[in-house]
Amino acid sequence: MYPESINNLIESFKLLPGIGEKTAERFAFAVLYMDSENIDIFADNLKNIQEKIRKCKICNNLTEKEICSICEDNYRDRETLCVVEDVKSVFLFEKMGMYKGKYHVLSGLISPLDGINPEDIGLGELLSRIDKEKFKEIIFAFKPSVEGETTALYIKKLLEDKNIKITKLASGVPMGAEIEYLDNLTLERALSDRKEIE
Amino acid sequence: MYPESINNLIESFKLLPGIGEKTAERFAFAVLYMDSENIDIFADNLKNIQEKIRKCKICNNLTEKEICSICEDNYRDRETLCVVEDVKSVFLFEKMGMYKGKYHVLSGLISPLDGINPEDIGLGELLSRIDKEKFKEIIFAFKPSVEGETTALYIKKLLEDKNIKITKLASGVPMGAEIEYLDNLTLERALSDRKEIE
Repeated sequence: MYPESINNLIESFKLLPGIGEKTAERFAFAVLYMDSENIDIFADNLKNIQEKIRKCKICNNLTEKEICSICEDNYRDRETLCVVEDVKSVFLFEKMGMYKGKYHVLSGLISPLDGINPEDIGLGELLSRIDKEKFKEIIFAFKPSVEGETTALYIKKLLEDKNIKITKLASGVPMGAEIEYLDNLTLERALSDRKEIE
Repeated sequence: MYPESINNLIESFKLLPGIGEKTAERFAFAVLYMDSENIDIFADNLKNIQEKIRKCKICNNLTEKEICSICEDNYRDRETLCVVEDVKSVFLFEKMGMYKGKYHVLSGLISPLDGINPEDIGLGELLSRIDKEKFKEIIFAFKPSVEGETTALYIKKLLEDKNIKITKLASGVPMGAEIEYLDNLTLERALSDRKEIE
């Protein structure tokens, strides 16, 4: 019903996560009235991203160079490693800003039910990195889930004989949450991990 | 904090209506893992749209040719003209599918407070088209608002001496609405325009 080039653009917008017909139409019409210079930049930015972005050779974080800016940064604490399940977690932590150590990005979490086994998430790279660099603490920052626990326990076991402190993010009641809406598992964990008030 | 090419794409996505930082980030990451062929098509679709789409010489609807498919369609009722405030309205009506006449798209509605006067919305073209083609009925399909009413009354006055039936969309209670949540103006209009049950 729309002219073909509008339809085509609508179909492209529908490839984005969470975008259905109506929103895709709204986007296509917005582009129709956009500054044509901005459209060219938009199109170039789309084409560039996969070409320019690659994985950091050390930590798998996204970068436009061989080595990402975090691995290159000599002012960061080189004795602490935060192991995350995907690159988004790195950006989340960096936005938060409190963490000053290094990162290592796995390709997901161990999940036998989905056919994802230890050898599929890049543990080899992680282990040889741990052998090379001298970390004193390794923090697992996985999502609280069966997969997260499994992966943490699996790696912890592999590191047993090395003298490294292994930690994970605290679980508990999120800030600002209403106690009455918490799920049982979260409440259970918050209770068993309760902390003395000092 | 993100590599430059990711930041750039995020900025482009933020040009779309209703898209803020978080969603733009989600879109950029989705593109990162998209099929590269689809990205090239996406970029081309963006660049194509303004180049290929133009206004129909007769009715101002969007088209890739000189004359839009509706104006070209000889099977449509040539005696009824639906005057709308923007091209989106044409597509809405066509989706609905009941209307079989022709359209004329104005460039907005008269709104003296915003500095939009009768000469700014393309009334000249509309009048000369009405002089040329022999319409028996002209339907105003503007949004129910001061601007819509003003524009309808203004055009109606210009057409006074021609023997054309002038109508507008019915206003009233929208289907499925809860009476208790209706605004006063809608309720007032629905009451004064009440219809005998036959």
